[in-house]
Formats: sequence, structure tokens, C-alpha cells
Amino acid sequence: MLRHVVLLRLDDGADAAMVERIADALRALPDSVPSIRDYCVGVDQGLAEGNAQLSVVALFDDEAGYAEYRDHPDHVAIIDRHIRPVLAGRMATQYSPEPPRATFA
Amino acid sequence: MLRHVVLLRLDDGADAAMVERIADALRALPDSVPSIRDYCVGVDQGLAEGNAQLSVVALFDDEAGYAEYRDHPDHVAIIDRHIRPVLAGRMATQYSPEPPRATFA
Repeated sequence: MLRHVVLLRLDDGADAAMVERIADALRALPDSVPSIRDYCVGVDQGLAEGNAQLSVVALFDDEAGYAEYRDHPDHVAIIDRHIRPVLAGRMATQYSPEPPRATFA
Repeated sequence: MLRHVVLLRLDDGADAAMVERIADALRALPDSVPSIRDYCVGVDQGLAEGNAQLSVVALFDDEAGYAEYRDHPDHVAIIDRHIRPVLAGRMATQYSPEPPRATFA
């Protein structure tokens, strides 16, 4: 499995309603990208100053599944039309999640 | 529930061995921070240029649980001793994860 984590910091042009619209657009992607195994979009609640506004934690079978998502036209369209115009900063990572630790109760 | 997602970009002073040591130190935190419900540390695999090197996706019952983790001495010690000296950038977010979508097969 491959986990993809991305955080997006948006500029002052993105108000709360716009952040929610971007989140809703992203949340529809599992309907059109077959390689998505798990997909969680988070809208920051404002608990800490300087936070990113949006996060995506996604799971794929492998690097090919991630690439299918990354390059999918529906995903690229959201980035180009909705995210890039208000994007102030972005960080991402992809990694193989470790298996859950055995617990000995 | 409250999910905390953080990405860390480290500077050139942090080689792969140091990144793994930081990850291992973080992975021990569920043993000492009772409020952690789920905790996943990721070390970037280098699939994309400019990626962050480390990520943490953590789950807590509520904001108080997150605050207990954020301020826990073992966590603060890892940040102060191991992360801050090599930290080039950080993004974070906290949000209530949406419940899984109902599926109608």
C-alpha cells in the first residue's frame, strides 16, 4: 500500500466557503478514480495559528495507483481551476504505511 | 474524534539515518501519551521532488486529547532535541474526520 498525504495553505483569496467547495470537489474523486482505496479530506478547524486549510490523506495499492490519481483529469481539473489560483503553499509525502503494531494485552 | 496531520521538511543537515531516528522516536509516543488513539509516522519514499521527509497522521478523541499530545514532555523533547535543529518547514492541520460514506452496492 502507498499512502499520500498533502497539506494545502491557501491565500487570503480563499474564504471559508471556497475552502468547503474545494473540499467537496476533492471528496467526489473516489467516484471517478478507481485506484483510490481510502480518501479523507480535512478542513482545518482553526485550533492552531498558521495551520494549513486543507489536507488529503489517501491510500492506494501502489505507486501506479497513486500516479493514476495524481494524473486523473478530474483531479487535475480541480487543481487547475480551484486550488492553484489560491494556493500559497503545499507540502506532500508518499510512503508505505507500517503494519499495525502487534499488541500483547 | 480529531485528526492531526503534520508534514515536516528537513534541511540538508538531516540525512536518511537521522530521518529514520526521528521517525522511530515519534513512533514510540503512543507508549507514553495515553490520549493517542491512532498514530502513523511516514518517511517519504522520494517519489516526487520537493516532498516533505516526514509525516504524522494522528487521531484523538477530542481537542483535549490533541493538546495532551502536543504538550507532552516526551513529544516536546523530540521536537526540541531532534526536529527543530534540522527543521526547514512545517505544515499542520486538525479536523474532525467525516464518517465513512454509506455505500449502496
